[in-house]
Amino acid sequence: MREVAVVGIGITKFGALWDKSLRDLAIEASLEAINDSGVDHIDSMYVGNFSAGTLIEQEHIAPLVADYLGQNPIPATRIENACASGASALKMGFIEVASGMSDVVMVLGVEKMTDVTTPQAVYSLSLAADREYEGYQGITFPALFALVAKRHMFEFGTTRKQLSLVAVKNHKNASKNPKAQFHNIITTEDVEKSPMIADPLHLFDCSPITDGAAAVVLMPLEKAKKLNNHKIVKIAGIGQASDTIAIYQRESFVSFNATIKAAEIAYKMADKRPEDIDVAEVHDCFTIAEICTIEDLGFFEKGKGGEAIENGLTDIDGKIPVNPSGGLKGKGHPVGATGVAQIVNLVEQLRGEAGENQVKDPKIALAHNLGGSGSTVVVTILEVA
Amino acid sequence: MREVAVVGIGITKFGALWDKSLRDLAIEASLEAINDSGVDHIDSMYVGNFSAGTLIEQEHIAPLVADYLGQNPIPATRIENACASGASALKMGFIEVASGMSDVVMVLGVEKMTDVTTPQAVYSLSLAADREYEGYQGITFPALFALVAKRHMFEFGTTRKQLSLVAVKNHKNASKNPKAQFHNIITTEDVEKSPMIADPLHLFDCSPITDGAAAVVLMPLEKAKKLNNHKIVKIAGIGQASDTIAIYQRESFVSFNATIKAAEIAYKMADKRPEDIDVAEVHDCFTIAEICTIEDLGFFEKGKGGEAIENGLTDIDGKIPVNPSGGLKGKGHPVGATGVAQIVNLVEQLRGEAGENQVKDPKIALAHNLGGSGSTVVVTILEVA
Repeated sequence: MREVAVVGIGITKFGALWDKSLRDLAIEASLEAINDSGVDHIDSMYVGNFSAGTLIEQEHIAPLVADYLGQNPIPATRIENACASGASALKMGFIEVASGMSDVVMVLGVEKMTDVTTPQAVYSLSLAADREYEGYQGITFPALFALVAKRHMFEFGTTRKQLSLVAVKNHKNASKNPKAQFHNIITTEDVEKSPMIADPLHLFDCSPITDGAAAVVLMPLEKAKKLNNHKIVKIAGIGQASDTIAIYQRESFVSFNATIKAAEIAYKMADKRPEDIDVAEVHDCFTIAEICTIEDLGFFEKGKGGEAIENGLTDIDGKIPVNPSGGLKGKGHPVGATGVAQIVNLVEQLRGEAGENQVKDPKIALAHNLGGSGSTVVVTILEVA
Repeated sequence: MREVAVVGIGITKFGALWDKSLRDLAIEASLEAINDSGVDHIDSMYVGNFSAGTLIEQEHIAPLVADYLGQNPIPATRIENACASGASALKMGFIEVASGMSDVVMVLGVEKMTDVTTPQAVYSLSLAADREYEGYQGITFPALFALVAKRHMFEFGTTRKQLSLVAVKNHKNASKNPKAQFHNIITTEDVEKSPMIADPLHLFDCSPITDGAAAVVLMPLEKAKKLNNHKIVKIAGIGQASDTIAIYQRESFVSFNATIKAAEIAYKMADKRPEDIDVAEVHDCFTIAEICTIEDLGFFEKGKGGEAIENGLTDIDGKIPVNPSGGLKGKGHPVGATGVAQIVNLVEQLRGEAGENQVKDPKIALAHNLGGSGSTVVVTILEVA
C-alpha cells in the first residue's frame, strides 16, 4: 500500500446558514480544498453524508456534487455511517489512494440540517440509533448519552462541574475559530442554568444542529511532495470499528468498545502510542462523550477524564490539547461534515496555520469520529511527513 | 494491486416478503454467502442500501448488520448511490481487498421496500432524481424513462413491440429462477394491455417494488485458490462513472454517458471487448433501459437494441444472453440489493450452477448497475480464473 497525504483542505462557516443549500456548501468546501491543494482535477470522490434523504429530500448526492463541481463523469460515492460518515468516507479515500487505483481523491463531508424544524431534525438524528429497540420507545440521543453520563458519574464520581467544563473549554476555543457556529464564551453556571434536556444533560451539554461542509484532497505521499508548498501531512494510521447499534446490548455504558478497537488499529498502523499524540479532535456530541473518549483513547486512565479536564490538561496549552477547534459543541456538528472537518482542523494545526487556536508545534495529531451511540468509530492519526 | 476473487455468494428469495425484516433478509443472504465461501470470519463489510432511512426509518445499518451477523467489532460501512448502491459497495470491497488492507471482505446489498405503501415507496425512489429540478415538478422515474423511450422511438424507430419483448423475455427467464419475484410468463399483449404508467411505458415495462438481499464474499485470488472447491471467479475489471443528476442537463436522452464511461474503464481493466462477453446482467429498471444499455455497452450498434431483442439475440441461447436471471423486471428490484444480486447470478453462471437458466459454458460475464436516471453506473466484468 502507498503512503497517503492530505494535500488540500477546505471548510465552510458552520452554523444555521439559511441562505445556503447543501449544493452551495458542498461546492464551497470542495473548491477551497482544490485551490488549497493546487491539483487541476480529481479522479474520484467520496461524500460523507448522514441524512440528506430525510433532511432535504435528496438521496444520491455524490454524483450531484461531482457534477456541480465540474468533475462529471468521475466516480462519486456517498458514504453513510451516521455521525461517523465523514471519517468513514475519509477511510474510503485513503484506501483508494493507498491501493494505487487513483492518484487524486476528494473526500467531502456535508450536511444541511436547518431547512427542517428542530423536531424533524431530532427525528432524523434518531434514525442512527436502533429504531426497533430504542427509537420506537421514545429514546433520543441526548437520552442515550444521559444514561452514559449517569453511569459514569456513579462509577467514577465524575461531577456535574466536570461535564460543564467540557462545554466551557470548547466554547472558549470556538470563540477564536472564525468558522465556528458559536463565538460566545460560557461559564459552568451558564451550562447548569440552561434548560434540562435529559438528566443530567442540559442544553449546553449537547452539540447543536448545524449546516456546513468540509473537504480534503488526498494523494500518494510521493506525488504530494512534488506538488505544493504546504508542509506535507500524511495519514499515518486509520482504524474503524463497530459495536451493537443499541446500547442496552453492551456490557458497559462508560466505555465505547468501538473507540478502543479503532484506536488500537490506528495506533498500530501508525506505530504510535497515546502519549505520542500532540493534539486531538474528538467527538464531543455531548460533554460526557468527550470524557469517555479521552479515556478510551488512552490519553487518561479510565474514570479520570473529568479530572483531567478540570485540571486543564486538555486546554490548548495543556498536556494534550483536545478540540482546539471548539469541537462539535462549539464549532457545530453538521453530521456528515464533522469527521472531515476534524481532519481539516488538524491539518491546519500540523501546518501551523491554526491562528489563535494554534497548539505549540504539533507533529502528530489524532481525530476521533463516532457514529450513533458508538456503533461506528473511526480513529485517524495524522503526522507531519 | 492484488487480484480479487468472489469466493462466496448468497441471495434471498425476492418478493413482497411481509414476514421478513431488513435484518432478517440481510442475515439470511450473508450467512448463505459465508457458508458458500467456507471462510470462518470476515475482516470488513460493506452494505449497499438505498433508502432504509425513509423506507424503514433506520439509518446506520452497516454496524447493525455486522453485529447481528456476529461479526462486531469489524469495520462496517453503508454505501448509497441510489439503485447503483449494490455495485458501488462491491467496488469498495474490491478496492479494500486489492489494496492489501483486508483479506476477507463481505459485500451485502439489501432493501426492504414493502413495509410502506406504494406511494411512499415511489416518493422514496424519487429522491434518487434531482429533487429541486425534477422531483418538485412531479416527475417520477417512470416519467423520466418514458422521456428516454419516446426519444429512442423517435430517433431510431424502436417499436412498442420491442419494448414489450424485453419484459416478455425477462419474465420467461424469471419463471425458471426460484428466487425471482415473478414466475408468470407474459405476452406482448399482456404488456400492452397493462395499465399505462407514463406514456409509452405500461405497468409491465416497469420493474417492481421488492424486498430482498444478496451478498458476496471477496478474497485475494491467490488465497482463494487455497480455499474451496468452487470454480474460482475473479473480478477482472470494475468501472464506475457519474453523470448529471437531472436528465434535462444532458446532451442526449437515448444514451447513458455514465454507462459508456464505466464500461470503458471496466473493459480496459479487464483487457476485454464487448464481443468477449458470454453473458450479461443489465439494469432493466424499465424495458427501455435494457435497450439503451445493450447498445451503450457495445453489444449492439446504437439504435439497434430493440431489433436485437426482437431477433432473439439476447435470449439465453442467443448471441449474448442478457438477464438470464430475469433481470430487475422479472427477478425483482430490491434497490440496494440489485447490484450485488447481479454478481451472485453471474457467479452462478460462471460456475455452471445456474440451473434451468444456465447459459452454455460462459467464461466471461458482465454486470451493469445503474443509479437514478443514469447518474451513477458501475460495470463489472467477471472471469473464470
